[in-house]
Amino acid sequence: MDFPLPSIGAAVASGSLGSEQAVQACLERIERYDPELRSFVCLRAEAALQEARALDNEPPRGPLHGMPFAAKDVFDTADLPTEYFCRLYRGFQPARDASLVSLLRLAGAVLLGKTATVELASVGDIPETRNPHHPGRTPGGSSAGSGAAVGAGLVPLALATQTGGSTIRPAAFCGAAGMKPTWGRLSTEGVKPYAPSLDTVGWIAEDVALLQRTAAALGLLDAPGAGAGTGLRIGLYRTPWWDEAEAATRAALERAAGLLQEAGHAVTEVSGPPGSERLNQWQDVVMHGEGCISFQADYRRAPDLLGQGIREEAENLRGISAADLRAALDHIAALRPQFDALLADYDAWLAPSVPGEAPERGPGTGLATYNRAFTALHLPCVHVPGFTGPQGLPVGVQLVGARNTDHRVLAAASILEALISAD
Amino acid sequence: MDFPLPSIGAAVASGSLGSEQAVQACLERIERYDPELRSFVCLRAEAALQEARALDNEPPRGPLHGMPFAAKDVFDTADLPTEYFCRLYRGFQPARDASLVSLLRLAGAVLLGKTATVELASVGDIPETRNPHHPGRTPGGSSAGSGAAVGAGLVPLALATQTGGSTIRPAAFCGAAGMKPTWGRLSTEGVKPYAPSLDTVGWIAEDVALLQRTAAALGLLDAPGAGAGTGLRIGLYRTPWWDEAEAATRAALERAAGLLQEAGHAVTEVSGPPGSERLNQWQDVVMHGEGCISFQADYRRAPDLLGQGIREEAENLRGISAADLRAALDHIAALRPQFDALLADYDAWLAPSVPGEAPERGPGTGLATYNRAFTALHLPCVHVPGFTGPQGLPVGVQLVGARNTDHRVLAAASILEALISAD
Repeated sequence: MDFPLPSIGAAVASGSLGSEQAVQACLERIERYDPELRSFVCLRAEAALQEARALDNEPPRGPLHGMPFAAKDVFDTADLPTEYFCRLYRGFQPARDASLVSLLRLAGAVLLGKTATVELASVGDIPETRNPHHPGRTPGGSSAGSGAAVGAGLVPLALATQTGGSTIRPAAFCGAAGMKPTWGRLSTEGVKPYAPSLDTVGWIAEDVALLQRTAAALGLLDAPGAGAGTGLRIGLYRTPWWDEAEAATRAALERAAGLLQEAGHAVTEVSGPPGSERLNQWQDVVMHGEGCISFQADYRRAPDLLGQGIREEAENLRGISAADLRAALDHIAALRPQFDALLADYDAWLAPSVPGEAPERGPGTGLATYNRAFTALHLPCVHVPGFTGPQGLPVGVQLVGARNTDHRVLAAASILEALISAD
Repeated sequence: MDFPLPSIGAAVASGSLGSEQAVQACLERIERYDPELRSFVCLRAEAALQEARALDNEPPRGPLHGMPFAAKDVFDTADLPTEYFCRLYRGFQPARDASLVSLLRLAGAVLLGKTATVELASVGDIPETRNPHHPGRTPGGSSAGSGAAVGAGLVPLALATQTGGSTIRPAAFCGAAGMKPTWGRLSTEGVKPYAPSLDTVGWIAEDVALLQRTAAALGLLDAPGAGAGTGLRIGLYRTPWWDEAEAATRAALERAAGLLQEAGHAVTEVSGPPGSERLNQWQDVVMHGEGCISFQADYRRAPDLLGQGIREEAENLRGISAADLRAALDHIAALRPQFDALLADYDAWLAPSVPGEAPERGPGTGLATYNRAFTALHLPCVHVPGFTGPQGLPVGVQLVGARNTDHRVLAAASILEALISAD
């Protein structure tokens, strides 16, 4: 596959490309590349073009005016079916837009279509979506289509969700920028719930600048970002799972740290508080324990129309008790202020995004080893793309900040992205 | 107003009344009394009768087979409008049932209609619903219609929600039994979100037995209840807000404690851990802080179609910062395991449900003084009705247990209800 450079977003943002032209360009790319990539599950081509034309004749509403975007098919949309890649919801048409879709449309962004998801953004069936950099590799999950579509340059921006690693992982595997904000800062209304204590809405974009524009349109940049590009304080956080990092990820993390230091930023090794090493296990208990509750109504209604993974989740095959779930929630909650306190001395911590390059397509979509703990801790995470591994596939790193420092993490990510790009 | 005795639920449960007869009886009562009471906002009379007839000819599906129920109009329903008492949603028709509505219908319960709610189950406009025991008094809120309809005997069971005190308070003011389960044990999918860290689905019923049947139908009674009625260990918890209790509530709490002791149960005074006295303030910060986020999309879409209270919430008139919200969440989270540890030595703690008898109808629906902390702590709460205050209006007490001991609290509530009833 030979995909276009993903730069439509920058052109719209700078005003060099009108909204209608941008939508038209996206549609042409989708028509050409998506039969093989399979990142979109439905489109609203004519309606999007009409909206774009109208927006081109309007005064700008804000930083996303005229910007084409897609939404993972777990976000409800009033004018497109929402199927969650679940047979029980084939042809399902919600009555209104999810909160985040509504906010982006009110801000002048143009909904182009819905992107493929792993069933119910959970442990269910896996879509046929390809990695834009290698058709035999997974694009990651569960936001498979959002990662692939943005990574391939078919659309500059796509909404995603993360309960384990479902935004950062596909962004990393597909070579796109990705943002998982602080949990709770944006409403998840109208997104199919999986594990409410973890579920976070996020987005994948062609670059960090567009991540920032999206955050601004959603009101997340209420505090000023970092300054002129010098004097960042970065913690190098290898995490308790460093021995699971492959050579590609190890090299990316070291190179990112080196680039920051060479540019005059302070990089120091950090570690988490006692108990950090158990965060991934606790996240697992919360995700599957709450997932079992979330899927009960669907399961009792039509178990045969759910994938095997969802059925097993609803049947609590892992045997998670209410006491297990409560204990995991409490352990995680106790660590949140401790991580915030440690992070307060830094602009962000630098950590791996994924174990390595995208693995082959198969029964899974790659591991969330470096995402679970941060999701559980409710921390803002930004995946910065730009590195390539030994197999020629994207590898990246993420920056992670204290809760509610989304703006600061994005600003640091912007600096790091420029350094990687100039490398 | 002279309302019927609320006993339809017991008759259906015992098999002495068929589902069709029960639905018919409810509809007749509604037709006769609801023009004055104003507890229902819409009905599905013919469809409910048809379903009831079909259920009468089916083998029983479980403990709620054929039981008529209503749902607060913040639960989405696929075959009835869902308006949240909000002008922005006038005539709004969701595409599917909320999770809890779906589960009850799958269990054989018959949806009769939707009940009045305070706008968005929050700080918005207040419906015209009357207290069934005095038309000049509030039925409580935000589950105003569910409390009034059950208290008046128009329907034996009604779904409610609680973010501050919105289930327990209307149950208490209207003289019905009420249940707010452990947070997170039942999915809130399809319920309009207010403050997700607090939002809990619950139900109001004609007696504790029907609360228990509902819990059983929803899978909440997975552990055995208390035994034959002796040997309960009850903590008498006056809460840090005891000086705000009126004479009616003080008398009810003392009498409930006395009845339990006279019956041979152990009642000892208890108090919460240090910091308990700040729980109501922290709950307030979380409720309004998260509410501001939840209402953003509605507010940006059409501020003029929202009540003043909702607009002020979306505008963050209280000036709650992200740091305030995070601190309140962390303080509350730290107290949860401490309360659980204290509660572990008891079947339940006995506490006030409301400050006193229902106040006059006006700009509010009464205070959630004795509900906020327990909602924040995610503890299961059961309101036990049966006492009457000096003005002849209902007053009751609640039993509160450790997280996930819903079954145990219900069993204790059943014992206390019988003692009050025999008093």
